[in-house]
Amino acid sequence: MPMSEVAGRMAPQVGAHCLEKENGGRGILLAGVPGVRPAYVVVLGGGTAGTHAAHIASGLGADVAVIDRNPDALRRVAAQFGDRVRTLFSTRDVVETRCRRADLVIGTVLVPGAAAPKLITAETVKAMKPGAVIVDVAIDQGGCAETSRPTTHSKPTFVVDDVVHYCVTNMPGAVARTSTFALSNMTFSFVLALADKGVRLALADDVHLRHGLNVHEGQVTYRAVANALKLPYVAPEQALRI
Amino acid sequence: MPMSEVAGRMAPQVGAHCLEKENGGRGILLAGVPGVRPAYVVVLGGGTAGTHAAHIASGLGADVAVIDRNPDALRRVAAQFGDRVRTLFSTRDVVETRCRRADLVIGTVLVPGAAAPKLITAETVKAMKPGAVIVDVAIDQGGCAETSRPTTHSKPTFVVDDVVHYCVTNMPGAVARTSTFALSNMTFSFVLALADKGVRLALADDVHLRHGLNVHEGQVTYRAVANALKLPYVAPEQALRI
Amino acid sequence: MPMSEVAGRMAPQVGAHCLEKENGGRGILLAGVPGVRPAYVVVLGGGTAGTHAAHIASGLGADVAVIDRNPDALRRVAAQFGDRVRTLFSTRDVVETRCRRADLVIGTVLVPGAAAPKLITAETVKAMKPGAVIVDVAIDQGGCAETSRPTTHSKPTFVVDDVVHYCVTNMPGAVARTSTFALSNMTFSFVLALADKGVRLALADDVHLRHGLNVHEGQVTYRAVANALKLPYVAPEQALRI
Amino acid sequence: MPMSEVAGRMAPQVGAHCLEKENGGRGILLAGVPGVRPAYVVVLGGGTAGTHAAHIASGLGADVAVIDRNPDALRRVAAQFGDRVRTLFSTRDVVETRCRRADLVIGTVLVPGAAAPKLITAETVKAMKPGAVIVDVAIDQGGCAETSRPTTHSKPTFVVDDVVHYCVTNMPGAVARTSTFALSNMTFSFVLALADKGVRLALADDVHLRHGLNVHEGQVTYRAVANALKLPYVAPEQALRI
Amino acid sequence: MPMSEVAGRMAPQVGAHCLEKENGGRGILLAGVPGVRPAYVVVLGGGTAGTHAAHIASGLGADVAVIDRNPDALRRVAAQFGDRVRTLFSTRDVVETRCRRADLVIGTVLVPGAAAPKLITAETVKAMKPGAVIVDVAIDQGGCAETSRPTTHSKPTFVVDDVVHYCVTNMPGAVARTSTFALSNMTFSFVLALADKGVRLALADDVHLRHGLNVHEGQVTYRAVANALKLPYVAPEQALRI
Amino acid sequence: MPMSEVAGRMAPQVGAHCLEKENGGRGILLAGVPGVRPAYVVVLGGGTAGTHAAHIASGLGADVAVIDRNPDALRRVAAQFGDRVRTLFSTRDVVETRCRRADLVIGTVLVPGAAAPKLITAETVKAMKPGAVIVDVAIDQGGCAETSRPTTHSKPTFVVDDVVHYCVTNMPGAVARTSTFALSNMTFSFVLALADKGVRLALADDVHLRHGLNVHEGQVTYRAVANALKLPYVAPEQALRI
Repeated sequence: MPMSEVAGRMAPQVGAHCLEKENGGRGILLAGVPGVRPAYVVVLGGGTAGTHAAHIASGLGADVAVIDRNPDALRRVAAQFGDRVRTLFSTRDVVETRCRRADLVIGTVLVPGAAAPKLITAETVKAMKPGAVIVDVAIDQGGCAETSRPTTHSKPTFVVDDVVHYCVTNMPGAVARTSTFALSNMTFSFVLALADKGVRLALADDVHLRHGLNVHEGQVTYRAVANALKLPYVAPEQALRI
Repeated sequence: MPMSEVAGRMAPQVGAHCLEKENGGRGILLAGVPGVRPAYVVVLGGGTAGTHAAHIASGLGADVAVIDRNPDALRRVAAQFGDRVRTLFSTRDVVETRCRRADLVIGTVLVPGAAAPKLITAETVKAMKPGAVIVDVAIDQGGCAETSRPTTHSKPTFVVDDVVHYCVTNMPGAVARTSTFALSNMTFSFVLALADKGVRLALADDVHLRHGLNVHEGQVTYRAVANALKLPYVAPEQALRI
Repeated sequence: MPMSEVAGRMAPQVGAHCLEKENGGRGILLAGVPGVRPAYVVVLGGGTAGTHAAHIASGLGADVAVIDRNPDALRRVAAQFGDRVRTLFSTRDVVETRCRRADLVIGTVLVPGAAAPKLITAETVKAMKPGAVIVDVAIDQGGCAETSRPTTHSKPTFVVDDVVHYCVTNMPGAVARTSTFALSNMTFSFVLALADKGVRLALADDVHLRHGLNVHEGQVTYRAVANALKLPYVAPEQALRI
Repeated sequence: MPMSEVAGRMAPQVGAHCLEKENGGRGILLAGVPGVRPAYVVVLGGGTAGTHAAHIASGLGADVAVIDRNPDALRRVAAQFGDRVRTLFSTRDVVETRCRRADLVIGTVLVPGAAAPKLITAETVKAMKPGAVIVDVAIDQGGCAETSRPTTHSKPTFVVDDVVHYCVTNMPGAVARTSTFALSNMTFSFVLALADKGVRLALADDVHLRHGLNVHEGQVTYRAVANALKLPYVAPEQALRI
Repeated sequence: MPMSEVAGRMAPQVGAHCLEKENGGRGILLAGVPGVRPAYVVVLGGGTAGTHAAHIASGLGADVAVIDRNPDALRRVAAQFGDRVRTLFSTRDVVETRCRRADLVIGTVLVPGAAAPKLITAETVKAMKPGAVIVDVAIDQGGCAETSRPTTHSKPTFVVDDVVHYCVTNMPGAVARTSTFALSNMTFSFVLALADKGVRLALADDVHLRHGLNVHEGQVTYRAVANALKLPYVAPEQALRI
Repeated sequence: MPMSEVAGRMAPQVGAHCLEKENGGRGILLAGVPGVRPAYVVVLGGGTAGTHAAHIASGLGADVAVIDRNPDALRRVAAQFGDRVRTLFSTRDVVETRCRRADLVIGTVLVPGAAAPKLITAETVKAMKPGAVIVDVAIDQGGCAETSRPTTHSKPTFVVDDVVHYCVTNMPGAVARTSTFALSNMTFSFVLALADKGVRLALADDVHLRHGLNVHEGQVTYRAVANALKLPYVAPEQALRI
């Protein structure tokens, strides 16, 4: 979750950069200026990353629409941002027409434990404005554009049909300092428990921590690891004798 | 003025980019995330560029202070942004201590028709945090940091004493589409006047337009051009016989 | 000026009413709801009436654009409303394309002492969405749509090419209580001066008040009245012997 | 729920219209103007409709108080709107004194599956200001004013004791386009399920959908319908053999 | 809970008063003025009291940071206040460095049913700025500064190491009128139930009310009272024969 | 002007303190809490002090009305604060009825170089709520309540007709640190000029500075001082031989 917050907040600033002429973009300032319209930013998905992306994009002065198929997610976004962010129910038509009109599309739609759905078809990308930008935050699960493929911080973008794609896996690595604090805030209580109680008691007391145990006294206690290594799996409770 | 608006609004998004690890920056997200502090952004100058920079930087979620030596400029900024942006009276001490604490310094101080004052000394740059960023919007007038020197969109930054300097002359060129509209909005009325009235009458009616006249019927009517070309100068009123 | 404030603030609520199905409108809620887009409101003119119309329309939750050809007016609107209201420089193309897309157009463009310019052509009206609404606040000076003609509070609207026109002259009459207070706030100081000093001294001291004098001791002191009645005109200063 | 959102958001704009002189109202502009106070709007009930009514009424510039007897509802409203909307705990005295002072009362109090409580007594209506307005959003459950009786979009209001009553059943019908999208956003997933899986499987998988089944293969599967038609009732699970 | 709201909202205004010179404070205006920085206010704890303290302190124009060790509390604060209030994850280092920099520290950290943790050590107090202020809202549970000891409304403050301590127990007593309404709003439903149903039925129907019963027909039904008076304890259900 | 900003911003926090029970006030929390109404604050005068008082009072969560007889001042306040602060045109009736309803009245009305007008009559004070508070910022010019008389920081208040009066002359002294910075920001440029150019040239170049000169080479150059000391007056230009 903290990494979704970081990636969501990074996405509009990354997108603003890609929109610059030098980077292949439309040469548009996200905020516009008085008398010149701002960029139109479409955020696919109203979860953690999408909400944080919308927060920053609207703070940057863009026109922002969040698209989701969960009415409750849209209500939550609408209550938090009032009228500064628009919410739209997701249909194929809405996604398509909004992406065509967008200067920047931020894809954040994830299905936990599954490949991200390909909401942005190759057709849609073809129909987008030349120089428009897609920032695919969901790239770690495969991306939510058919045209997305993973990139790195050293070469973050590529162009398909005149649309700039930013598909860096591990986006939060670019702001390592912020990300590290965000992560360690979450893990801090685990560290304290291990230091205070010792490994065995800490694992006995906290099921979340226990589920993270991979190996204990030579026994593999994480099923995926056991399968991958073709070793027998032992439940952590059994290995720890608790 | 429209170019100051564009450059001012670009500065924070450019600075956010430079703060990324890959670009030599501190690896900090301008907005922070819940639980992790945002960047501290110091804007030198509360004129057009500075006000627009403050608008976007605070929209991006940073802690923003605008420093100026004109109390009226500070009051105008305070009235427009309420408590979202802090205003500080400019003294050598304030500039120095704030720059040392800053993650991003945006220099916008200009003296019309003169070199920008070097508010940020080489000493101050040395004392700044490693990975901090200076975006010197005043670079077209020489820049307001002693360590600034002009760069281009293709190689926009350099590093002095671990501080990333972004000193691109003609910043608005990066968002050419927005800039063009912004400029043409301002020039539009001149074009209409020329089309409606013809050159001579339009120039007779509008002193601003007339002052832009360089050459008329073989006579050089702009003093700087005349000097540069070592040709005689003729006042535009005389050349136009008005 | 107070009547421009009242009319400007009334315009969006009047437009919201006209947009209801029963009144010939598109059946659209100005604010939308979470998941359904709000109305797009175009305000022609960024003066007093336009600024107040934009204030209320954006408060009602609509997407609002203010169009003006004066860059300073756009800057003032942008500074007052931040990113909640969009500002667009007025060109024939901008007016046309924005009106076509609009659900509600509020015309507030006035040239003092002249007929309002016909910014909305009959062609543009034809191209607008069926059920869209024009509220022509400038109707007292002839209106800024070619298709506008004056209406009354008892029958406030008519339809041309499926576009509902609200062109009530004296809009503030509908909210007589608010308007009366607004007006009397402005006129109060004149009344006090007349009561405190007597007519002659009050008129002598205040040129604005004096210019409102029509008749004094049988002499017509207002030129337009004198012309209309074919009576000799006497300057108020002379009639009052001051 | 989407219809409560639509009705709640419509209520202030409908109330603003009723407050116009022509419609029997006090002749007050909801927003006031600088120097003249705005309308005082009392919203009875802090649920979905009440929250959305408060959002729009405060956006329109009115002074807004939400009255509810559930402290948690008041806290939620206070957290969402900060100080722009006032929250008051509901007692008979508070309702009475606030309604007397109000220019516009919006009644949204519903008890699901029961008649709405008559919070506004006939006495209170008598004591309200002449030309004040009641918009009774709860009219579909009988209304929350003793003086309310259902009206229609073609004749939406009536006057009791100089107080204008707007009691249109099916308010969302006036903004049919917005309402239809809002509703279909909610029903869309049902339609997709029916199309993808066929009727029988879709009904088997989703208890909400199944409870909407009225008739299946000649068997009445909805108890109220069966009772009304005096036909035998068959449980949908049995009729569908699932 | 209502008393936490009152005390939380009082804390910044009490702190502002203590910061005045006359009261031993630094002579700082919480809001600053244009050109002069505002006070830095650190709120320890992001629960009810802390959230309300942050709301008022930021409304007063101060720079506000809320420190908590619960990431979800920080997220809730961040979502409610956007960028107007900063959230920081609580570590010993963060508490210490932020208190040293603070002009005003508001302590609201409570562990229900236990002594408040001493987050502010005597060392930290020594290191704070001369004239800084601690308002210890947690004083009823012992306070969250090691240097805190209870005071009264008639002599509310004392000074330790140049730091003004405001440690009034029962803070809400100072705003008795507001507090009484806040409390009675919460207790009102109990009173109604007792009046409508009679004592026995009301207690039978509501477990919260029943748990408040101390004595019934000569039997002590509250264990702490029974222990204190060395009388036999009878469960309220048994005493009431329900 | 900076002292008006400081005093204006101090006034609501001082008033909040006086409203506490212990200090003779109504026992009301300026902000209220969810379910309990906030204080009603009336600010007399929409100039510098009044605008800053309104800013802080509304930030503190109170219901705020600014009363002025200058429509332009009201417009400026309305544009700056939107709907968070109400503006009312000043008539005797408005002042009287609003003061009667107020929990806190902040008087800021000054006529430069003259005694402040006594807007709040002794009658009005009698009719105010018991425990209401008047903070008379205009006390240095005599105060704008008939019942006001100067007090000091060590004994800041007195009570007339159950209304607490805070009439400290030199309010900014309480926040000496903030005030000193605010003042020195304004005077700084004078000091720099004196240091850079020497006394004579600095005075020759700047008419404002010159008008502050009292004595030069034994000649009295300030008329009021000359009159008071019965010494001959010499114009500063003559004394300086410039």
